[in-house]
Amino acid sequence: MPIAETPAPPYVAVIFTSSRTDGDNGYAAMSAAMTAMAREQPGYLGIEAAREDVGITVSYWRDEASAAAWKQVGAHLVAQRRGREAWYRDYRVRIAHVTRDYGPR
Amino acid sequence: MPIAETPAPPYVAVIFTSSRTDGDNGYAAMSAAMTAMAREQPGYLGIEAAREDVGITVSYWRDEASAAAWKQVGAHLVAQRRGREAWYRDYRVRIAHVTRDYGPR
Repeated sequence: MPIAETPAPPYVAVIFTSSRTDGDNGYAAMSAAMTAMAREQPGYLGIEAAREDVGITVSYWRDEASAAAWKQVGAHLVAQRRGREAWYRDYRVRIAHVTRDYGPR
Repeated sequence: MPIAETPAPPYVAVIFTSSRTDGDNGYAAMSAAMTAMAREQPGYLGIEAAREDVGITVSYWRDEASAAAWKQVGAHLVAQRRGREAWYRDYRVRIAHVTRDYGPR
């Protein structure tokens, strides 16, 4: 999963930081499915993810409404519940408004 | 590096996403030094980092001024230059204002 090709700000970033429980318990398959499904949502701009001691997934959205709509998609609600019950020891979700960005390109 | 224990929003998140060049080239030592130095800066609230295909480092700050001040610290300017020249194939920095957060605790 490369660096997301987001448009010029402003847009919304949802920063999801988590620590996992031991074992897979169906996590990898659901994670891949949710990433694929997120890409199909209205207002989706991109996603970046990496995991070492903690996992960080940043998804980018056109606005708060599109990020909030994705949170309420049925299959995603099922995944969130399974996450709370089985996959995550702890997590934090932060909703942020990106105002500036820069890079070498 | 655990999930950052940030205070209640609002605060600022600097999302740094990067892809690395091959080899260490002094990166690991500088990365550890910069993380330790960031913790000492005024307005520092926390940091989270993970790397797989891409690296994601999110640093949290009281406000944009404290994030901007850290960008200008001498040793950090040296590290940024070395990053552009040797460590990063590509990167993106996004400055974002966290307005809400939630988690299980």
